[in-house]
Amino acid sequence: MAKIQWSIAATEALKADGLRIAELDTAGTPGFPGDKKAGQELLAERAEVLSSLQERLYANGRSGDSRNVLLVLQGMDTSGKGGIVRHVIGSVDPQGVDHAAFGVPTAQEKRHHYLWRIRKALPRGGQLGVFDRSHYEDVLVVRVHNLVPEAEWEPRYDEINAFERELVDAGTTLVKVAMFVSLGEQKKRLRERLDRPDKYWKFNPSDIDERAYWPAYQEAYQAMLDRTSTDYARWHVIPADHKWYARLAVTELLIEALIQLKLDWPPAKFDVEEQKRRLAES
Amino acid sequence: MAKIQWSIAATEALKADGLRIAELDTAGTPGFPGDKKAGQELLAERAEVLSSLQERLYANGRSGDSRNVLLVLQGMDTSGKGGIVRHVIGSVDPQGVDHAAFGVPTAQEKRHHYLWRIRKALPRGGQLGVFDRSHYEDVLVVRVHNLVPEAEWEPRYDEINAFERELVDAGTTLVKVAMFVSLGEQKKRLRERLDRPDKYWKFNPSDIDERAYWPAYQEAYQAMLDRTSTDYARWHVIPADHKWYARLAVTELLIEALIQLKLDWPPAKFDVEEQKRRLAES
Repeated sequence: MAKIQWSIAATEALKADGLRIAELDTAGTPGFPGDKKAGQELLAERAEVLSSLQERLYANGRSGDSRNVLLVLQGMDTSGKGGIVRHVIGSVDPQGVDHAAFGVPTAQEKRHHYLWRIRKALPRGGQLGVFDRSHYEDVLVVRVHNLVPEAEWEPRYDEINAFERELVDAGTTLVKVAMFVSLGEQKKRLRERLDRPDKYWKFNPSDIDERAYWPAYQEAYQAMLDRTSTDYARWHVIPADHKWYARLAVTELLIEALIQLKLDWPPAKFDVEEQKRRLAES
Repeated sequence: MAKIQWSIAATEALKADGLRIAELDTAGTPGFPGDKKAGQELLAERAEVLSSLQERLYANGRSGDSRNVLLVLQGMDTSGKGGIVRHVIGSVDPQGVDHAAFGVPTAQEKRHHYLWRIRKALPRGGQLGVFDRSHYEDVLVVRVHNLVPEAEWEPRYDEINAFERELVDAGTTLVKVAMFVSLGEQKKRLRERLDRPDKYWKFNPSDIDERAYWPAYQEAYQAMLDRTSTDYARWHVIPADHKWYARLAVTELLIEALIQLKLDWPPAKFDVEEQKRRLAES
């Protein structure tokens, strides 16, 4: 067993309530007192725990349980959302993952309510859903760039809370994660994409344009945390300058969420002894 | 580097052409001269190669390349299709995987042509698609149980060939894999599901009923191989009594298919030096 463990529950260490983003230490590792090596050692162990819990969730889903878990990932460019999918979600069985990424809405999506494409991508019972960006784009990029008037985006906070209430009532456990890197760390990561031909494809010139809107994004993220962290669907804030820490933290949040579901293996829906006899004769 | 490698290309070792299923040694390890330990050692290495090639496919997809790879998995109950998804597909980035499992058609699906649900689940450009069962169910279980009259399933072999020709022309590389275990190995695996409460959920009493149809399934699988292994979409036959071998074999088939695509990293669609200057000033 890894020598260094979380000092408090990740859910507690990362809670958004009362947090000011402007004051966040994006290089911090709240709740985990170890360094990178200790973090990676623990991650290897916890990835197996996550995989095992996810298998139970999947097994229950296959047996008709409609509960599921939905990881909502938000964060500025280069904050490491893709790395979470690859390295955290990558440790569980792909059969049990419902992954969706939300980019700029398509022409068709724009003709619908902003929650239309979100609802279509909701995870099935027993699945671990992953939203790489989400309905929160509609109060982030949309607010920052005035893509719709304030009178239109302002009511969305309440709408989103009502929408998530509905999901929770239907059996979804939401794990909402906002990842933050510093402006300097973002520059370093973008530079790496420009230095390495195997990373060009991840780069978009508009990523640089967006840097000029950093304060407006900070404000929009703060409003999002303040207004949509509810007792049934809390936000967690992840300092993400250290990729190893962000991955460890999201793994732990998912584990804590799955433990809350108190999942047993589904019972047999058949007479086990009778089936053993039938099998022996077959 | 692992000491024992494939002695010939997996595509060659596993080709279905001319093969008689009735004569297949399901405990064999064609093309790989090592034992379980050697196979697992090699798999650990090849999984990384697969992951790296898949990332290139994904990168090209993100840059507009419409090509993709579709793994079609067929096999009797307990032949290990789920294990392939978990242990082979599980080694690549979940963002790049489009997974679909095809069970008994729903009421809605039954009101459509049998290829309707298949077409809806086709992978996007740049994705590694996985079909856990597929359109081939419509010439396997459907044929064995006379779910439709022969006059209806008989033309499907040609229809499927035409359908796959269309996919290949549109940029899909099909990797078709039929997995076979022996009747005895299947009994052992079903028994394990009845012995372990954490496996009950995988068991269905109808799995035992199906065992009585083994010869009919052999015949249906043979017809499938004979009639739908085309030069543009070949079948590969995997002896699957050894799970480690089946996983090694499918990994290798996917690697060989990806290598055929000769994937480079997509070139920059912007002036790299100009973007470096802009970034420095941002």
